[in-house]
This record gives sequence, structure tokens and C-alpha cells, in this order.
Amino acid sequence: MKRVLITGAAGNLGTAMRKKLAGWADEVILSDLNPISELGAGETFVQCDLADYDSVMALVEGCDGIVHFGGVSTENTFDNILNGNIKGAYNLYEAARKHGIKRIFFASSNHVIGFHDREALLDAQSEMRPDSLYGVSKGFGELLAQYYFDKFSIESALVRIGSCFPKPLNRRMLSTWLSESDLAELIKKVYAADRLGCTVVYGVSDNPSTWWDNKHAKFLGWTPKDSSEVFEQEAYLREEVVDSSDPAVRFQGGPFAKAGHFEDD
Amino acid sequence: MKRVLITGAAGNLGTAMRKKLAGWADEVILSDLNPISELGAGETFVQCDLADYDSVMALVEGCDGIVHFGGVSTENTFDNILNGNIKGAYNLYEAARKHGIKRIFFASSNHVIGFHDREALLDAQSEMRPDSLYGVSKGFGELLAQYYFDKFSIESALVRIGSCFPKPLNRRMLSTWLSESDLAELIKKVYAADRLGCTVVYGVSDNPSTWWDNKHAKFLGWTPKDSSEVFEQEAYLREEVVDSSDPAVRFQGGPFAKAGHFEDD
Amino acid sequence: MKRVLITGAAGNLGTAMRKKLAGWADEVILSDLNPISELGAGETFVQCDLADYDSVMALVEGCDGIVHFGGVSTENTFDNILNGNIKGAYNLYEAARKHGIKRIFFASSNHVIGFHDREALLDAQSEMRPDSLYGVSKGFGELLAQYYFDKFSIESALVRIGSCFPKPLNRRMLSTWLSESDLAELIKKVYAADRLGCTVVYGVSDNPSTWWDNKHAKFLGWTPKDSSEVFEQEAYLREEVVDSSDPAVRFQGGPFAKAGHFEDD
Amino acid sequence: MKRVLITGAAGNLGTAMRKKLAGWADEVILSDLNPISELGAGETFVQCDLADYDSVMALVEGCDGIVHFGGVSTENTFDNILNGNIKGAYNLYEAARKHGIKRIFFASSNHVIGFHDREALLDAQSEMRPDSLYGVSKGFGELLAQYYFDKFSIESALVRIGSCFPKPLNRRMLSTWLSESDLAELIKKVYAADRLGCTVVYGVSDNPSTWWDNKHAKFLGWTPKDSSEVFEQEAYLREEVVDSSDPAVRFQGGPFAKAGHFEDD
Amino acid sequence: MKRVLITGAAGNLGTAMRKKLAGWADEVILSDLNPISELGAGETFVQCDLADYDSVMALVEGCDGIVHFGGVSTENTFDNILNGNIKGAYNLYEAARKHGIKRIFFASSNHVIGFHDREALLDAQSEMRPDSLYGVSKGFGELLAQYYFDKFSIESALVRIGSCFPKPLNRRMLSTWLSESDLAELIKKVYAADRLGCTVVYGVSDNPSTWWDNKHAKFLGWTPKDSSEVFEQEAYLREEVVDSSDPAVRFQGGPFAKAGHFEDD
Amino acid sequence: MKRVLITGAAGNLGTAMRKKLAGWADEVILSDLNPISELGAGETFVQCDLADYDSVMALVEGCDGIVHFGGVSTENTFDNILNGNIKGAYNLYEAARKHGIKRIFFASSNHVIGFHDREALLDAQSEMRPDSLYGVSKGFGELLAQYYFDKFSIESALVRIGSCFPKPLNRRMLSTWLSESDLAELIKKVYAADRLGCTVVYGVSDNPSTWWDNKHAKFLGWTPKDSSEVFEQEAYLREEVVDSSDPAVRFQGGPFAKAGHFEDD
Repeated sequence: MKRVLITGAAGNLGTAMRKKLAGWADEVILSDLNPISELGAGETFVQCDLADYDSVMALVEGCDGIVHFGGVSTENTFDNILNGNIKGAYNLYEAARKHGIKRIFFASSNHVIGFHDREALLDAQSEMRPDSLYGVSKGFGELLAQYYFDKFSIESALVRIGSCFPKPLNRRMLSTWLSESDLAELIKKVYAADRLGCTVVYGVSDNPSTWWDNKHAKFLGWTPKDSSEVFEQEAYLREEVVDSSDPAVRFQGGPFAKAGHFEDD
Repeated sequence: MKRVLITGAAGNLGTAMRKKLAGWADEVILSDLNPISELGAGETFVQCDLADYDSVMALVEGCDGIVHFGGVSTENTFDNILNGNIKGAYNLYEAARKHGIKRIFFASSNHVIGFHDREALLDAQSEMRPDSLYGVSKGFGELLAQYYFDKFSIESALVRIGSCFPKPLNRRMLSTWLSESDLAELIKKVYAADRLGCTVVYGVSDNPSTWWDNKHAKFLGWTPKDSSEVFEQEAYLREEVVDSSDPAVRFQGGPFAKAGHFEDD
Repeated sequence: MKRVLITGAAGNLGTAMRKKLAGWADEVILSDLNPISELGAGETFVQCDLADYDSVMALVEGCDGIVHFGGVSTENTFDNILNGNIKGAYNLYEAARKHGIKRIFFASSNHVIGFHDREALLDAQSEMRPDSLYGVSKGFGELLAQYYFDKFSIESALVRIGSCFPKPLNRRMLSTWLSESDLAELIKKVYAADRLGCTVVYGVSDNPSTWWDNKHAKFLGWTPKDSSEVFEQEAYLREEVVDSSDPAVRFQGGPFAKAGHFEDD
Repeated sequence: MKRVLITGAAGNLGTAMRKKLAGWADEVILSDLNPISELGAGETFVQCDLADYDSVMALVEGCDGIVHFGGVSTENTFDNILNGNIKGAYNLYEAARKHGIKRIFFASSNHVIGFHDREALLDAQSEMRPDSLYGVSKGFGELLAQYYFDKFSIESALVRIGSCFPKPLNRRMLSTWLSESDLAELIKKVYAADRLGCTVVYGVSDNPSTWWDNKHAKFLGWTPKDSSEVFEQEAYLREEVVDSSDPAVRFQGGPFAKAGHFEDD
Repeated sequence: MKRVLITGAAGNLGTAMRKKLAGWADEVILSDLNPISELGAGETFVQCDLADYDSVMALVEGCDGIVHFGGVSTENTFDNILNGNIKGAYNLYEAARKHGIKRIFFASSNHVIGFHDREALLDAQSEMRPDSLYGVSKGFGELLAQYYFDKFSIESALVRIGSCFPKPLNRRMLSTWLSESDLAELIKKVYAADRLGCTVVYGVSDNPSTWWDNKHAKFLGWTPKDSSEVFEQEAYLREEVVDSSDPAVRFQGGPFAKAGHFEDD
Repeated sequence: MKRVLITGAAGNLGTAMRKKLAGWADEVILSDLNPISELGAGETFVQCDLADYDSVMALVEGCDGIVHFGGVSTENTFDNILNGNIKGAYNLYEAARKHGIKRIFFASSNHVIGFHDREALLDAQSEMRPDSLYGVSKGFGELLAQYYFDKFSIESALVRIGSCFPKPLNRRMLSTWLSESDLAELIKKVYAADRLGCTVVYGVSDNPSTWWDNKHAKFLGWTPKDSSEVFEQEAYLREEVVDSSDPAVRFQGGPFAKAGHFEDD
């Protein structure tokens, strides 16, 4: 890769990937609403509001690839989601179309399918059932990406990220955990593939318990190496009390599925 | 029905349904951006921009049901689509949640699935493949409706309307034509059903050629009575020249699938 | 048909079918726990407890076909269900095996699948989800029939009867109604078919609303002629008040799915 | 249609279709190994061995469409099948490619799927299970047509003809009967369609009993009008003795599935 | 686990699991028709006929979990199966309902699906095709468990145990073998899961050859560790003579599928 | 194995397997159009044109098993394909039928399904979409094998070989590579299985990227041990330039799918 854009570069995932992907590309353009002070070799920072069309056009020009973590990454007001995830996604894909970017890594979310029962095994063809406005907005992004592929041949990996943290924060994440290393490896595979199409990938490590089957993305050759198994016996996970009839336990989206409307809280 | 809201009441579908549904409800609230001058018995007009949250809240209060034709109904600029179909849909569902509306007839569109080949037989579980920004926005509306059903138990009919005109305007519409009478009957069935859930219905008459199978909505008891067969021999349809390799013929979305980006035109 | 056995002949279905099938077979053996006093031409009555092995052996001998309505036909105590539907079904199939009966019409019930949602379209391959001990016992009968087919080549029609009454008794039955004439015609088709296998058939008329698809039984050539549509406008059906969130409305089994354990009542 | 080629024009289907399709095309080229003496208006006869490459090249030149009934139409020696159905099909598709023919009506056969059980409901995606060398050769033709579509965009209707006779000749044909009128109408629909793709169609009338579901060809708008129901009560059908365990009754291919190897007979 | 009931504790599986699960629960109640003389730490024995309602009620009271191996575990007379597996299962689930037990490990059997061909890959949604009265009775138990889940929210693991012996006894068991360690681990996973639902699990180790896919139970996080591969080269397995057309080889149920009716033997 | 026939024994696969399978059978009959000079212990060479019926009859007599690599193994003229792959396959299966051979290893090819997109995950039930006349001829062989199984109980492994070379020759083969050792092991498994049926197996090693799922052949117990991963970093693979919109990259068949008609080249 010569020149890669990472949006949302100041967020958790962006920050983690900057380190993991060091050396992968000659130049890395980092963008975020928030400033990033310490830059590594080859890194450039561009402050950018993804909701601003002209800024995004300028940002994208000249890139070979885009790793899109930008926008709102959890439940929020509709206005914030509209700006970050709906206008933001549109501006990004339009900029890609106008500047001839061929392939986008789109960070979608498991909250696109969060209202499925935990006993359901999902794959890339499962019905979307978002558990939040956030999940709806990520579903919008997936539909938009499909449209730009079918009409303009821009390829996308629609990566429904589970829970990407250094370690699982609760029992639910034993099933949804994605290690930072596995995510970094997936990003590389997405850009190394001879052909990507518009492909849904569940961003999840090789955990003993899983709700998601990546069979439709096996052509990518991504094989997660980490597993939540090493955390299973940790006290904070063993001692967590769960009730199997709690909506946060019944549904894949966990607390997102249980929560009421955001404004209510 | 005591009091029904029809949004987009000044548009083609709204106007046609006002006549067909006359007498169905005691009161009919008509809303549109454009004024409606001649009102029938029981009809009240409220001018309303669906993108305006407070106006929509006021509009919806006190209704038993909503027939939602409002918003942009064809390809348009992203700004217009954002206002009419994305903010508009959110405002409507939020208003329904706050005011306790239980059931919504949501006019979605075949352009949600317009990038499927014509030889593909689709049903309610087929993958969404929008053919336009308009189609993406209707897909957003469907996801939003699913979310409000899963979380707040608001039922929706997601009616992917084919081509609702007095008669088919071109050969493609021989397969996609929906008569106004069949549409009116569907609206009645949606509100007569003991249970609706969140159900995709293809809005299409009983045409000889069809690309869509409504088997998952058979519980509704809707049986379209009209057929495009009576128009098949009309000269303007017989004489239309088509090329089977033309994208407008290959894909279900027809000219929407063939068109470039809206701004390009 | 030369000699046909009808079990449960004193019950509602048995009584109705005796009339509808008059003349179909040369001899009709009627069996029931309860006596039948008035016999028609060619009819013979044999009082028989299906739970009694020896009685059933004697009853079945010499028959060409069996129309099995016998046993308990609604929710009941487990003891009664055990005797009528579990021992009863076993004794009947054993007798068929020992006496060389080749084909059985087995009256199963929609309550075998009563815990599916009404929006689900079921077919012969849908998962069994019984809504009652009665439904479980009918599921047992279906498994037993499959076993006798796979091992001993005894063919069965497993007819999941909806609601067979002169007219629908409530709104739910608009979807589940089976006319007596359509049932009689189905019985004839089952015995006229060149091959039956072990086939699930939903016993339902050609109603506008349906939850069941008989596509896997199309080889039988059974085409129901009646429809509940003629009853739709009757006052007692229009005036029935339903709540879409009531378990009796949500689930296909209706009140069976809603009811608690039989002993509780 | 300006100029249509009908191969196998002296056979049963060819002869019947010549009459039914009179007037459909301006010119009809009839080809067969056997001579045809009486020609109608617009008909021209060309004697042709489909196994002869040069003859087929000459035959096809200048045609708008091809209705291909030629080749062996029942079980036969492998040599005959090789010449008529394998070399013949290849020569025909090659000629179509070289002369720019866009669309072919290919008479395939139900014997391509004859080893499925009668209780199985098949559609266009069901596995091929030929019941004879004849069936294998028709399967070869279908694969060849798919290849010429995928690589050279030549469209084909792969019509798995059931039993096309003036009336059903035996009980099996109550399920497989195709009236000559329905076949003629299908041929017209195949050439009237705006797009055909490479589509499997089961050639069967609207019989009460059927083993085949044409749902994947609904886009064609073909609706068979005839039914074997009118023949059901004929004595020769009622009196036919069948044994449900006979392979000719168990399998869809009937006597083809039961027969041993052709040379054995 | 505080207090666990193991039924059938004197049988093969019960005996093996007592050892493997030592220390898992504070108290283990062992029940069986046959006496158990030597008790380990925390073990209590209660002699109990599962067909006796009152005894089962008393047995279950106060338990946190139930591991149900009790009843008849191979083909037998219908009377024995009725008592052990039908009355027994009902009494157990009724006792669970009355005493508030939330989760049951139900030992079902591969003989529930024994009439599938060996080339068929089954999963939790495959059709039940029992190969014996024993298999029918286990199917009854699965339906009953589903009913108690849908109506009373009692969760069950329906474990279709393959062949649980110290080593495979014949060639068929190379595909069906379940090691005792893998079974013990599965029991623990069933009780460790945050949510279980009513889930079919094939009880089989990680053998090279398998007929069963546990994908629908991947959420449990059970990963069998043993494999029959280590036994493949043993002389008694290499020297076993098999005939691929033998029903005991063709069907998954092996000798159960081949055997005639139990009374015949 | 006592006596095994390997056809196409002078070709690449035949030569490689002769070495890998040394010692597997007591006697190995090698056949090819081309002579083989150096024979190993137990090897006999018979020159044979598979298109010649009598020669094949003589060749097959007395064998226990057949490993069929013979015929044309890449795109060629139709005449050559007709002789090698169509007549050749027929002669071989006829010889097997006449001489009582029970089981055949049939080397089919991934070019039977080469017109599927690379993002599609195929299994044994996926539609055949050949990418060449060669692929069509292999599809013919598969249908023929299915017919001989359904009618004459001759079992076949239909092995859709990917790319069997010492190492991947280009980037596409990173997904399709089959090591010689894995192929040899598969041949042994095919003959060691208690039952084979007529089973499609994708002949591919355990590569990180794959387009094919062998789940329906898991009963065979074949577990490939090699992986193309060890070659991924080789310079000639890293430096290969690919274009994701090139038909040779879009379709699984690679250059076969892209190529025009053979005669054109």
C-alpha cells in the first residue's frame, strides 16, 4: 500500500490499528474530529468532520485505500448518528467514486444484527435486525456500500466488528471478542485479496463460543489466531451474574438490545 | 378506523388512495409539503415538512394508523433524500413511539432490490440490493421499522411498491404493475389483520409475469385481483424495442439500475 | 375401497365424514369408545378402546384402509393422552403391520406446530413446536408413522388438521378453517394416490389468509375448493376484539399456546 | 419472428407444433432426418443430420430463433444418443454462436430428473438425477446451454418436457401431462420475453397433481391453461393397476427409472 | 453447581459421568432403578422408578440441575419404553416445572435420526427419522422438552449421543464415537452457558469421519478434544467386513435401522 | 486393494499418484494412450484408447477399483473431448457395470463450476456452471456416474480437482491448490470408506483461502494436511499483477472462464 486513509484515527480502534499496522503502508493519512498530537513515521494528520462534504472530498483524494472507523461508534442521539454515520458514509463513498478509490474497509458493527437470539447462528446472508439507532445507521452504510459496488464497482469489506478490546470486558464478550491483532490481520487480508466484492465479514476472533459463521468470507483467507478461551477463568468473568431470560442475555446485541430509546436515559 | 394519517397525500399515490379509501376511516388527516385544496368529507389537511421533528410530532398525535407515502419518491439529490426519507422516516417512527401508534403502512419500493437480475425470484427474505440513493433510503426505512418493531413492538407493513399507475407505462411494468384498487385493498388488509408483525410485502398485482413471491405475507389474506394481462397487446407495449443485454432490462430496477449518479445527469 | 376402518367415528370429525364419505367404500367399520346407534348401509360398529392392544388387533384385521380420528382431540390430562394418543397410535400401527395394512390416514393436528409465530409460513419440513401435551402426542404419532414407513413401508398421510367445523368459530379460524367437504375429498385423494409415502399435509381449505404451504403434498392432487372468505363479514367475526400482542394471537396455536398446564385450569 | 428453425420437425412434437404455431413466424425452416412432404405456407424443409457439423452450420444461418426438438427422444443405444443428442447439441450451439443466434428453445426432458422420488417437489435448482442414457444426454445439453450463456450470452429455455400427447396415456401422465396448446404458448412466451437468461422450465400443464414447481420461471409469464383433471375419470386410467413399491411408481421417471440398461432389453 | 440430579446413574453413562464429574457439584443425587452401593463424596443414592409420578416429584425437589440418562437406552418392548422413556420424560419435566428447575441435560440419541443415509450431513434442523421404538421415544422426549421451553421457559440440551464407550466397538463407531471426557465437558458447558434455549447437540467427538454438524450449537463453546483416529488402525476394526449395500451400513442408525420389530427377534 | 486400474497413468496426476500410492495395492494396472516404460513392482502397463469400447472392456476386467484420470485434462477441440471424456467415460462405466466393479474414483474438475464468482462459497449441491467444453464434458461424466449409481449401485467419488501441482503456479492456485499427498490420501479414503454413495468432493488442500466447502463429504473422513500458506510469500506470487475486474479473477475458473472458444485461439 502506498497511501492509506484511516478515519476515526483518534478513537480506540484507530489508535490500536495505527500501532498494529505500522509499516504496512508508505503513507498513512489519519483523520478525526479530535486532534492527534504524536505522529509516527509516514503518518499525517488531517482534522476532518466526515459530515462535511468538501472536507471529505479533499481528504480522500490520492489515497489507495480507506480504513473507515470514523463516525459515531455507539448509541447516540439521532442527530449525531445522522452526521457521523449517514452523511459521513455518503460523503466517503462519494469521494471514493469521484477519486477512483477501488476498495474500502468499512467498520460496521454486530449491532446491525443485535436482535437475533444468541442461539441463532448467523452468516453473511442473515437478515439485518439492528438493536439501536447506531445499528440502523451501520445497516444504512452496508446498503450504501452494496449500491456503490453494484453500480460503480467499488469493493467493500463490511466488517461487523464484535468487541475489540485488549480483553473481554464481560461474559458476553467471550463470544464477541476480537483481538487487535486479528483485526489488523483482517485489514491486511482485505487489501491483499485479488478480489473482494462487497463482502460481509464478522469481526471476531477464534473464540470457543461463537454466534457467527464467516463461511461466506473464506475466500479472503483470514484465519483469526486469538481466542477468548485464555480469559474464561478470570474471576470477573466467572463471578458475573447472568439471567438467561434477561433481554441483554437473550439477544446478541446484549445491553444495546435491552436499552430503551437513547433520549430516555 | 377512526383517524388515519396519510402522508404524501398530494402525490400520485396519495391522491389515488384518497379516492379509493373514501369512507374507510372516520377522519383522514392529509399531510404534504404541497397544499391540497379540495377536501372530501372527513378529510383535514395539515401542511408538514416530514424533516421537521416538532411538526411531525404534532401531526401524528391522536391517529389510529398511518399510511406513509411521504418523502421523495424517485431518485434525487442526497440532500433531498436525507430530508424526506431519512429524517422523515425517523421523525415518523419517533412520533409513533411517543404517541402510541401501533401500526404503520410504510411505502417502501422495489428499488430496494433493484440490482437483482430479472430471472431471480425474490421473496421477503431476499438480500437488499438497492439500485439508487432512493433505494438505499427506503432500505434505511425498512431497517428502522424493524428496529422499532423489535424494540418497541410497533408493527409495520413494508410495502415494496412496484409501479402503481392507471396502466403499465412500458414493458417492464407488465411485471411490476400494481393497480390502484389492489393497493387500496392491501392498505385495508394491513389494518384489518389481527397481527402484522414487521412484514415485507411486494406491492404488485396478479400479473402473468412476476419477479416477486409474496408467500411470507400470505397470512395477511391479501389477494390482488387485477392483472397487467389486459394491457399486453397494446401497441405501445408491443412496439417497444428492448435489448436483453441492456442493464435496464437485465436488472429488476430497470432504468434506476442503469442510471449513473444523480448529479451526473 | 372394499373395507375401511374409521376410528373415533362417534366424534365430530368421524360423524361428519361418515356422511360425506357415504358410498365410498363397500364396508365401513366404525369404532369408538362411545356407542353409535344409527348405522347406515354398509356400516358396522365396533366399540373399542384404542389403548387395548388385543381389541385393536381384532379391529384392524381385514381392512383395506384406516382413517384414524380416534384418541383424545384436545388438551387433556397426560393419562388420557397417554392412553388415547400414545398407546392408541402404537396399537394401531402395530395392528397395521401385523395385518398387512398398507396405508393410513392419520389425523394429526396444527397443534404440533402451534408455537410458531403467525407471520411464519410453514411447510411440511418446518420444525415441530407443539403447543400442548396434546400437540406433543400428535408429534409422537407422526414420528411413529415415519418409523413404520421407513422400516415397514406402511404409508401415511399425516394430516395436520386446522379447524374443521361447519363454519369458523372465531377470527383465528379464518386462517385455519377446513371445510368438511375438503376434508372428505382429501381422504379420497389419499387412497386414490398411486404413491403416498409418509407425507405431511396441512388440513386447511383455500382461505385468503393462510400460515401453511402444502407444496410438498402437491403430488397428491388435492385442491381444496372451499374458502373462509364467505364468512369474513359475519358480525361475530368482525366484532371480535383481538390484541396483536396476546399470545393467543401471536402464536399459530391460538388459545392452546396461551393456556397454562392442563392441571392448572 | 421472421425466420424460425424447428429441428426434429417430423417427430411428434415437431409435427404438433407446426400446426399450433402456424402464422407465428414469417418463415419456418423445418429440419429432420426424415423427409416431410406436405409443407404449409411459409414452411421450408431441409433434411439434416444434426450430427453433421457442416450441415448444421448451413441450416442455422439466417435464423432469428431455434426450436430444438431434434435428436433422439427416448432411451436408445449410446451411439445413437451420442450422435443425435451430444454431437447434435454441440453443433447446434456452435452454429448459433457463429451465426449470432441469440435465443434457443431447447427441448430437454423430465428424464433429466427421473430418479427423484415422486413425493419430492422439484424446482429449477434441484439436483439432476437422470434415469437413462437419454436423460444423461439431455443433462449434457443443459450444461452446454449454460456454458454458451455464461460465456457467449446465448439465452436458452431448458424445457424439461413432461408427457406431451393429446391425452395422458397412463396414470403417471396425470402428473406429467403437457397439452400441445400449453407447449405452443410456452414457445411463444420464450421468444416474447424481454430477457430469458438460461432458464429451466418444467413443461407441464396445470394438472391437479404435480411434482414440479416453476416458480423460478414465473418471470416468463407462462400460465398453462389445460389440466389433466378432465381425463381422471376415464376408464383406462381408473383401471390401471399400480403398486406403490414398484420403481416405476416410486420414481418420477416411471418406466425409464425401472428399466435396465438399453442393450439388456 | 450446588445440587445436581443424575438419573440412570447406575447405567454405563451414569457410571462413567459420576467419575468424570467428581467435584463438579457440591451434592450429587444419583437415581436409578438398580441400587448403587459405593458412593463417593457428596453423592446420595435414591432408588426411583421414573414412571412413578410421586417418586419423581420427590426426587427432583431442591435440585439446581438435572442430567437425565434414565430410562431405557436401547431397543426394547413398547411397554418398557412407555414406562421408562415416555412416562419417565413427562414426570421429569413436570417435576422440573413444579419445582422451578431451569435447565435440563436430556440424553437423547442418534437413533432419533437413524434412518438418514450415511452420506447425509445432518444438523439440528434435520428431519427426525427414528430407526426404532427407542428412537421414537427419544423424539417424543425432544418434542416434550421443546414444549416445556416454549411454554414454561425450561431450557434443555437435547444431546443426541452417538456411541459413548471407552473405544469404538466397530467400524460404524469410528464415525459416532463420543469419548467420556468429551461428554463430561459437554455437561459442564451446558450448565456454564449464560443461555441455552432448547438446543439439539450431537454428542460426538472430533472424529475424522462425521455425519453430524454441530454448527447450531457453536454458541455453547463446546469443543470436543478426542478423536477416533487413534483407533483406526486397530485390527478388529480393519478386519471387520462391511457391505456398502447392507442397511446397517447404508443408514446412520446401523443395526437399529436394519433390525425388524423388537418382538420378532 | 488387490488389483487397481489407474487410467491416464502417463499424465501428471497419474505419474504423481503411482509414486504416492506405491504399495497400496497388490497389483496396479496402468493404462494410457502414451507408453510408460519404467514399471515399478506390481505395476503392469496396458496401452488403451478409452474411446475404444472393446479395449476398455478388456482393461477393466478383474479389477477391484478404478482411479480414473484418463481422457483430456484441459480445454481442447470438441472431437478430442468427445473421444476422451464422453465416449471414454461411458465405456469405463459400462465396463464397470459388466464386470461388477463396485466403486470408481472419478477425476472431475473445478472447471465444472468455473463460472461461479470467487466470492461464492460452493458445496456439493451448488449448480454446475462449466467454464469450457472440458468443464461440460466433466459435468457429463458426473451425471453419468450419478445414473450408474441410481440404477446400478456403482459408487463414485466425483473429485473436482483444483490445481494439483508440486506448488501453486500463480495467485489463483493459492485458493485451488491440492497437494499430491492430500490427493493420494483422498484416493485411499475413497476405497477405505464403508460406504461412498455418489459423492462430490472438492479436491483441494487446507489452504487459508478457499471457495469450496466439503461438508457433504465429511463422512469420508478425509482431512487434507497441506496448505498453500507456505507459498504465500514467494516472490513470483507476490509480484503477480491482478485486476479484480478481470474475468480471470472474477470467476473461479480463472483463465478457462476468460478464454474464448477453443478454435478461436
